Amino acid sequence: MTARPAPLDDGMIEALRSIVGDNRLSTSASVLEQHGKDESYHAAHAPDVVVFAHSTEEVRDIVKVCAESKVPIIPYGVGTSLEGHVAALHGGVCIDLSEMNEILRVNAEDMDVVVQPGVTRIQLNEHLRDTGLFFPIDPGADASLGGMTSTRASGTNAVRYGTMRENVLALTVVLADGRVIRTARRARKSAAGYDLTRLFVGAEGTLGVITEVTVRLYGIPEAISSAVVSFPTLKGAVDSAITTIQCGIPIARVELLDEVQMDAVNKFSDLDYPVQPTLFLEFHGSEAGVKEQVETVGGICTDFGGGDFQWATKTEDRNKLWKARHDTGYAAAALKPGCGFWATDVCVPISRLTECILETKKDIEASNLTAPIVGHVGDGNFHLVILVDPDKPDDTAAAERLNERMVMRALAMEGTCTGEHGVGYGKIDFLVAEHGEAMSVMRTLKRSLDPDNIMNPGKILHV
Amino acid sequence: MTARPAPLDDGMIEALRSIVGDNRLSTSASVLEQHGKDESYHAAHAPDVVVFAHSTEEVRDIVKVCAESKVPIIPYGVGTSLEGHVAALHGGVCIDLSEMNEILRVNAEDMDVVVQPGVTRIQLNEHLRDTGLFFPIDPGADASLGGMTSTRASGTNAVRYGTMRENVLALTVVLADGRVIRTARRARKSAAGYDLTRLFVGAEGTLGVITEVTVRLYGIPEAISSAVVSFPTLKGAVDSAITTIQCGIPIARVELLDEVQMDAVNKFSDLDYPVQPTLFLEFHGSEAGVKEQVETVGGICTDFGGGDFQWATKTEDRNKLWKARHDTGYAAAALKPGCGFWATDVCVPISRLTECILETKKDIEASNLTAPIVGHVGDGNFHLVILVDPDKPDDTAAAERLNERMVMRALAMEGTCTGEHGVGYGKIDFLVAEHGEAMSVMRTLKRSLDPDNIMNPGKILHV
Repeated sequence: MTARPAPLDDGMIEALRSIVGDNRLSTSASVLEQHGKDESYHAAHAPDVVVFAHSTEEVRDIVKVCAESKVPIIPYGVGTSLEGHVAALHGGVCIDLSEMNEILRVNAEDMDVVVQPGVTRIQLNEHLRDTGLFFPIDPGADASLGGMTSTRASGTNAVRYGTMRENVLALTVVLADGRVIRTARRARKSAAGYDLTRLFVGAEGTLGVITEVTVRLYGIPEAISSAVVSFPTLKGAVDSAITTIQCGIPIARVELLDEVQMDAVNKFSDLDYPVQPTLFLEFHGSEAGVKEQVETVGGICTDFGGGDFQWATKTEDRNKLWKARHDTGYAAAALKPGCGFWATDVCVPISRLTECILETKKDIEASNLTAPIVGHVGDGNFHLVILVDPDKPDDTAAAERLNERMVMRALAMEGTCTGEHGVGYGKIDFLVAEHGEAMSVMRTLKRSLDPDNIMNPGKILHV
Repeated sequence: MTARPAPLDDGMIEALRSIVGDNRLSTSASVLEQHGKDESYHAAHAPDVVVFAHSTEEVRDIVKVCAESKVPIIPYGVGTSLEGHVAALHGGVCIDLSEMNEILRVNAEDMDVVVQPGVTRIQLNEHLRDTGLFFPIDPGADASLGGMTSTRASGTNAVRYGTMRENVLALTVVLADGRVIRTARRARKSAAGYDLTRLFVGAEGTLGVITEVTVRLYGIPEAISSAVVSFPTLKGAVDSAITTIQCGIPIARVELLDEVQMDAVNKFSDLDYPVQPTLFLEFHGSEAGVKEQVETVGGICTDFGGGDFQWATKTEDRNKLWKARHDTGYAAAALKPGCGFWATDVCVPISRLTECILETKKDIEASNLTAPIVGHVGDGNFHLVILVDPDKPDDTAAAERLNERMVMRALAMEGTCTGEHGVGYGKIDFLVAEHGEAMSVMRTLKRSLDPDNIMNPGKILHV
């Protein structure tokens, strides 16, 4: 690992200033501090300077200046990552891409859109409103498309529409030496050489800076219905979700919240659902198709002890429901004022999901921590929101144990240490446990494309 | 490019023999010749020796022997590729993987399966018959799963189920230096580092030898219906397919055959469809869902001048229909006895598909060649089956011009030079036109993982 270089010299700051001008370069303490931290529990590391880029050409020129002096580059979207992805572990230049937020081209007939990386998912969907199309990937936070690409984000809709892996068609990327490439054309499929698009999706800025993203869009379904269903047991809720998937129901969302999380959600979002393990469901399709899905899933839930569906059919009610789902972290944190939250993340083959969740629940109970469970259970993916009192070192140690046991259990079940949050610097060691010899291939790729280790160094892997 | 090395010396042959034994190594002329040729029009190049591997460990040991002497390695499945992928351009060792054809583990609850690379798609689906599951990717040929992975195959069902890119969950790969890696776990999604799986999907054996493949499976739909519908114009047929996709109909197959191809199919497969531009359709879903899809698509086809649907609902009739579709190449070839066929392949954004096909049709008419059009039009992907008389150099030259114009037109429309056949050595020059600067990244990746250029050299790129 490269040692932290000396703070940037004046010549370099001047070189950057000559690219972006006075108003888009900052060394103010508050700006630096804000850019060194994401929404995770990981320690912040401020960069030496933040530049706000407005174009691919500016990013290219900034990268060239950094490359010449071998200074680290950290791409920054809106800072909603969860494993310390934006921390400037070795100082350097943070390239803030949030002002590159133009929607460049909506290709409605091809159902795709080309955007700058700072466009957020809510901004994109508001822009698309009149086209009858939408962008489904929804990690909860109003993340930037560049950031979502870099972390291979997914979230509540992935069970039906896939993740960023399946939905990115092409990227423009500035490489570590300032070369600019486009990874693919706009055709829906291609067998034309190595899949460079997928190489940069999930690379967390360690191989290049993404400056343009082309993603797939989908027609807004004719009918959308959301429902909430409570279960007397956690097992019943998880088994219902698994069975739904195994029956091939094209459900759009199937989200688990355990009873601890439901208690938190009720209090935080002013709702009054039963304080029981619960599934939040959403169905997309034609009127008849949705009706059919609802009947089948209703039957499955009843078989596993679920209660009646409580419907949210009006757009307004649906939005309230999913806002409550997205606020689970904040809701959980509000259970214990003063506590921060650790969001964990594993994903296992669905046949192992019930066992994985129930064993994890036992760990939580043995830990004396408050740690609600939430999950995109249709994908086999779940999280704990572990509440940690920053003033209690015991809490931190217990949270670390809980997280580690959960990851190791997932790996033992042929699962992954992260379904969607990514690696950042929080999960580097687990990555080795997961991939073994394959890590040497990742290191080879990293060294070949970034020989001086200037692109977001210290993330995903040690080189 | 490396010059062709001297034929393998006796010591090396002995080293290989010590790995696979006497019976699984061949230097007989007919075996060598058969392994140097795929189903394409590209010139054959025989390897110096063929070894029939039975395990990952054997492949590893064979690769190590070759690596030591820097001898080329060409992985071979069942030889159904279409761009010269298996030609031993620089001689070397062909590793025939067709005897590694065990289905290792059906994980029915997780809807995935682990197979050896020599398993073919028909073999897999026969094996799965009693599970209620199926593997949808269907390139026409009864290709091996290893080969389909290596060429990023897709075919008729991709419009609904995706391509090999979306359906491979994990791979075991022997690298150029004999290291063995597993690219991922069995979880449906993961954000754990670089997407090594997608790096090897479509790499055509140039980065390693695939020795195990884990793919997704799907529940056999409750209802399946196939239909054929004829159109007075090519434009009407293509526009119907495009509109179907733009309306978000989850159609399982939507295949175009122009009137020349229909004439060939009728003659070859003993059918009597109208000799008109035609769509072959298939609908998957619940009984009600299929009915609804059929009504919508029926309406669309009528709007564009289509005739009545001719149904094939019985499994037997459906199989006959799709066999006829898969035999289009042979059917076309039978139009002109003595001719071989060139299968071309481009893919464009669907908004440009009609224009691309109609312009190409004009080129065909101007060329004096017989070249039926077939296509997976729901993906924007189509082929010509150009009939070429090997004794007429003019035919070959005209076919080359036709192919080149078609590819360049697709590129000008933001499309790709190959939607599914891959690059092999037939499309290397077009790849440069398509990717520009990004080719340098592909070369960097290739050199970093295969510094001596022993893995299927001369395919995808020149290093």
